[in-house]
Amino acid sequence: MAQLRKDPVIARWVIVSKERGRKPSPFVVEKPEPNEQKECPFCEGNEARTPLEIISYREEDTRPNTPGWRIRVVPNKYPALRVEDDSNARKKGIYKMMNGMGAHEVIIESPHHVEDIFSLKEEVAEEMIRVYRERITDLMKNPHFQYVLIFKNKGKAAGASLNHSHSQLIATPVVPKRVEEELKGSQRYFKLKRECLFCNMIEQEVASKERLLWEDENFVSLCPFASCFAYEMCILPKRHCSDFREIKEGEIESLAAMLRKCVTSLDKTFPHLAYNYIIHTSPCSKPDLEFYHWHLEITPRLTMVAGFEWGTGFYINCITPEEAAKTLMGSG
Amino acid sequence: MAQLRKDPVIARWVIVSKERGRKPSPFVVEKPEPNEQKECPFCEGNEARTPLEIISYREEDTRPNTPGWRIRVVPNKYPALRVEDDSNARKKGIYKMMNGMGAHEVIIESPHHVEDIFSLKEEVAEEMIRVYRERITDLMKNPHFQYVLIFKNKGKAAGASLNHSHSQLIATPVVPKRVEEELKGSQRYFKLKRECLFCNMIEQEVASKERLLWEDENFVSLCPFASCFAYEMCILPKRHCSDFREIKEGEIESLAAMLRKCVTSLDKTFPHLAYNYIIHTSPCSKPDLEFYHWHLEITPRLTMVAGFEWGTGFYINCITPEEAAKTLMGSG
Repeated sequence: MAQLRKDPVIARWVIVSKERGRKPSPFVVEKPEPNEQKECPFCEGNEARTPLEIISYREEDTRPNTPGWRIRVVPNKYPALRVEDDSNARKKGIYKMMNGMGAHEVIIESPHHVEDIFSLKEEVAEEMIRVYRERITDLMKNPHFQYVLIFKNKGKAAGASLNHSHSQLIATPVVPKRVEEELKGSQRYFKLKRECLFCNMIEQEVASKERLLWEDENFVSLCPFASCFAYEMCILPKRHCSDFREIKEGEIESLAAMLRKCVTSLDKTFPHLAYNYIIHTSPCSKPDLEFYHWHLEITPRLTMVAGFEWGTGFYINCITPEEAAKTLMGSG
Repeated sequence: MAQLRKDPVIARWVIVSKERGRKPSPFVVEKPEPNEQKECPFCEGNEARTPLEIISYREEDTRPNTPGWRIRVVPNKYPALRVEDDSNARKKGIYKMMNGMGAHEVIIESPHHVEDIFSLKEEVAEEMIRVYRERITDLMKNPHFQYVLIFKNKGKAAGASLNHSHSQLIATPVVPKRVEEELKGSQRYFKLKRECLFCNMIEQEVASKERLLWEDENFVSLCPFASCFAYEMCILPKRHCSDFREIKEGEIESLAAMLRKCVTSLDKTFPHLAYNYIIHTSPCSKPDLEFYHWHLEITPRLTMVAGFEWGTGFYINCITPEEAAKTLMGSG
């Protein structure tokens, strides 16, 4: 029998329906594209094909925008938002608009043409987390920005146009709706219980083990109770902290290892699967919150989001998070 | 320069960025699939391949589940929700869940293997609207249901698994989040202005013509100011009405013609484009609302929804609704 489950943070209902999973080919996994290394603007030696780098972690005595880097951050060549002097917020009848002020950067995770972070060396995956921290820290100082979002699109079905492993970052002059919803939901819970909803979730999940994936001294990973997507995963720090910038050195190593574990288990279950991940942290104006808890969400792109999801804002997931956890653990 | 636009109803920000449109191949249009008529469970003669019909509009002297029908409604073979005796709402620690009580039906729009509603005869498209009205009216009487949503998935990228032209209907025991947001947003506006936000929107759009598509005595169609998707369209009744069931005979003809016009212009611009449409109407418990206004939203599937959209709940649209309207009008 199908079940309706409510997300405890943003109060969104999800339909968990095994019945739907019996549809012929409920899952779509794209075939890997041929390796387009020659043309790849993210490969070492092709630095001139990207805008000038913002920062890079590179060998001493090598110059910016030349080979010798391990990780490189450049502006997105086709930015959704860009740095402007003024947002110029204005009205026209019932409508409100402002200039597309912001930043849109690409984090190139390797000089080599690797396609996913599980192919990165451990130290490189850790450097990637350090770069995330450094860029968020820098951009959050800009008084025009309300939010900085780190995200990854891996594979065409997840929106990636290049297959060289990379993440992106976008800084926005407003707090995104989804984040506002998480803040409101967790604040409501805190007012009632005087406890962090995410801390309580970790406690309940570690105790029940039903949806738990991996755990070390710093992080847990799990399949969320009200997962919108099949094989969805979430990584949370055990230490209460709303602000991703506060991540410490030992935690960086844990997170890099946990992230590689999650993504590897996904790839072993569905080779070359497209997925997205995002880091949700506190907004620029109020980074230190007792009711909020930063986390990383991984959403595989196995099924299409269709009219029903768009029309209702709720999702149909054809595999229970409990089964998903079992499968991922088995292959991880 | 990119622009941030705020949806006047649900306060969601959209990035309208022509810059993003300069990306190589920003649009994805799937190639049409070969016609799989022989195997099609929705074709006349194959009635035994679907669950037993709920209603059909058919020639006199023909029996249910045999040929002779023009439109046929059947339960979805792989339902997301199904009729249950009880929702059995329950809690487990921080989590809430209930049984997947509801209804999930398929409206087969033609006995012939046509792939879209613009291939339907005018009378058949009108009958389709009458079937929508009849099914919503019937299901809204069930005290277990809070909402009934009509939607269409056309093409694989929009989530359709069969290419024979059809719509779907889902009845849910909770009011969907997206609908709640529209209700809240339009109620807030009404409290402030004592006027319907949607009526005011129609007035402003008809006056400015910037985003207006077509107009007759009963309906307008337009590209919404804060469109999330490229070439998004909305059809609204001119007469204030929150409840789709109240649609009258003359209005049904108008709506069928307007819908065919919109979908035809889309197909002329991007042949075989995948799209979704949905009808947003008032919830079962409070159908008659002075602040809400039913409407039909058409969302083409030209671009991928990626990590950024998922992480933020806001969307990047790489064509302005003003340009979209111009192009659609030119081809319509």
